[in-house]
Amino acid sequence: MPLIDRDPLLLTPGPLSTSLRTKQAMLHDRGSWDEAFNRITAEVCRRLVDIVHAGETHVAVPMQGSGTFAVEAALGTLVPRDGKVLVPNHGAYCARILRILATIGRAAVELTVPEDQPMSPAAIAAALDADPGLSHVAVVHCETGTGILNPLEDIARVVAERGRALIVDAMSSYAAVAIDARTTPFDALVAASGKGLEGVPGMGFVIASRTALEASAGRCHSLALDLHDQWRYLQRTTQWRFTPPTHVVAALAEALRQFDEEGGVAARGARYAANGRRLVDGLGALGLQPFLRPEVQSPVIVTFHAPRHPAWDFDTFYRGVRERGYILYPGKLTRVETFRVGCIGALAPADVDGVVDAVARTLRTMGIPTPR
Amino acid sequence: MPLIDRDPLLLTPGPLSTSLRTKQAMLHDRGSWDEAFNRITAEVCRRLVDIVHAGETHVAVPMQGSGTFAVEAALGTLVPRDGKVLVPNHGAYCARILRILATIGRAAVELTVPEDQPMSPAAIAAALDADPGLSHVAVVHCETGTGILNPLEDIARVVAERGRALIVDAMSSYAAVAIDARTTPFDALVAASGKGLEGVPGMGFVIASRTALEASAGRCHSLALDLHDQWRYLQRTTQWRFTPPTHVVAALAEALRQFDEEGGVAARGARYAANGRRLVDGLGALGLQPFLRPEVQSPVIVTFHAPRHPAWDFDTFYRGVRERGYILYPGKLTRVETFRVGCIGALAPADVDGVVDAVARTLRTMGIPTPR
Ligand SMILES: Cc1ncc(COP(=O)(O)O)c(C=O)c1O
Ligand SMILES: Cc1ncc(COP(=O)(O)O)c(C=O)c1O
Repeated sequence: MPLIDRDPLLLTPGPLSTSLRTKQAMLHDRGSWDEAFNRITAEVCRRLVDIVHAGETHVAVPMQGSGTFAVEAALGTLVPRDGKVLVPNHGAYCARILRILATIGRAAVELTVPEDQPMSPAAIAAALDADPGLSHVAVVHCETGTGILNPLEDIARVVAERGRALIVDAMSSYAAVAIDARTTPFDALVAASGKGLEGVPGMGFVIASRTALEASAGRCHSLALDLHDQWRYLQRTTQWRFTPPTHVVAALAEALRQFDEEGGVAARGARYAANGRRLVDGLGALGLQPFLRPEVQSPVIVTFHAPRHPAWDFDTFYRGVRERGYILYPGKLTRVETFRVGCIGALAPADVDGVVDAVARTLRTMGIPTPR
Repeated sequence: MPLIDRDPLLLTPGPLSTSLRTKQAMLHDRGSWDEAFNRITAEVCRRLVDIVHAGETHVAVPMQGSGTFAVEAALGTLVPRDGKVLVPNHGAYCARILRILATIGRAAVELTVPEDQPMSPAAIAAALDADPGLSHVAVVHCETGTGILNPLEDIARVVAERGRALIVDAMSSYAAVAIDARTTPFDALVAASGKGLEGVPGMGFVIASRTALEASAGRCHSLALDLHDQWRYLQRTTQWRFTPPTHVVAALAEALRQFDEEGGVAARGARYAANGRRLVDGLGALGLQPFLRPEVQSPVIVTFHAPRHPAWDFDTFYRGVRERGYILYPGKLTRVETFRVGCIGALAPADVDGVVDAVARTLRTMGIPTPR
């Protein structure tokens, strides 16, 4: 029996808690051929490009499915069949890029990075200099597996200086961390509806350089994931190529309005950062230590070391916190026992106090001592 | 200005009008790692298999994205790289299967069928006998481009008798037309959330033979669309591999409950058929003739010849009917001027009377004479 009578709050990397206003936008059915819906699509795409200041050079192409579908669409459409991609790897989502490239038959070179360290622009530069065959670099901006944030602008600069193309998985950082296409050159930046924009899950999108996209006709390994075909069809007809998730798109449009009202990336990023600090302070007072150094910690999700105590058991902990109204997330690290707490979504610092309290009570019930 | 103050009703092949109860299921955020959500997924998958009486032999594998994503997932996962697929073609969705096969590099043989004729089991049998290299047959059950219904049971029998595997695109017929896996052998049958089940769009699913699926590891051309990997992960963890469209899944669970309450396929198919008859009678009285003979017409969507009159213009017609509260669909035929009206969704015969009235008034406004 839950001890609290409301939907649990999601402190996870997505799906997130969203506002009621966003969900209420889904109380209408819309025709996918209808002008009213196509105007929503156009408006959403324009806003998505603007948020990263890419309106002059890039277009937003929406893609049905989860974020991974959009990542695969970007890689499969933009990397030529004889391309070769450098992939710095310090976590689960970097590894997923490598797995996609192997599956779709694009050559990849892995650059191993310790999982508690950010990617090094210098190491990327050196790898590019060492192998002229590398055509692309694919990086994860915020590696959600740990919560580490990478120096995207510096990485983009060394890649551009060497004339290579950059593909960025900004799934969990988009709208939470400032990205400016005018100073951070990229061919594609991928994100999704259900993360920092606080929409519901069901569509991804790629902010793609118009030039790169134009050169990519007929290259994709998949019909459904062909970003070029999706773009051309949208341009020609104002409609999605295949049935769009109309309710998800409408919710995203409503979420974008709230994002603007809140004050855009600056305000949202500040709220998430405040959530993160409150979380680290609060759980820190209970003796729980973050896995990452503060300088490399993103405002998106925090990985905590599990208490070193014989009574620790993630499932029991999860259930205890859930009964008290909060949903946490398991760790994704293999060598150390951790759990994760998300800072994103329709959450205020006061909600974080609630989580801290739920964690404290749960640990006590489990017989795990806390300092206070 | 719309002349009617409610959301327009969708008489289209999807997205459809859905019940308020179904949409209200989306007013909650659910964690994709949480047991409560995973129980919903399991329950949905069990019902999806049961509806086609396939529980003994098949499993339901959900897939993020639109219906086409699930069709591509089925073809890419179940047809071996050296397989060869016979594709009878009498419309847009048959042609899409051919396009997918060409894109993903699976050999295909097209069997041309006139667009106003159903597929012939005898012709399929002859084509299979003539080419021992054919490993699979891929058919569309109801070709939504025209609304024609194919004799699926007879097709399945000739395919099975010849030891070949059948993949069925039952996108628009599933839940509207009875399908029984015990008498209609297939390796895979593909449909989606937003059609006859009257959920909202955003996920497809494949009812796949367990044996065929087990043999398909590592075969898919795509990571996101790998049906085998999706299935294994779900089996092992009870969770979707990548973020599920949680709100869409919850809406589908609620839609399935209403499907059962209505009386399953028999009752739903009867309601759609009644909608279709009312539509053909009503528009017939206005002088509008269906494109197909009644014997091959599905209860899903009806294609009508456009009036032969100089004032005819689909866009004007569409807008006039829309202002009166109904959304129709354009024709998909290239040689004859047509429009389409869907019979599926949360629509009762009384709604069809409203459409007929809206069409009558619109034609009159356009200066196109109608018999009554
Ligand atoms: C950095 C990153 N990349 C990719 C993904 C994959 O997205 P999805 O689960 O929507 O496929 C996620 C999901 O959390 C992510 O955080
Ligand atoms: C028979 C058939 N196949 C495939 C599709 C494609 O589905 P989607 O538009 O959801 O990709 C449809 C959509 O109406 C259909 O009717």
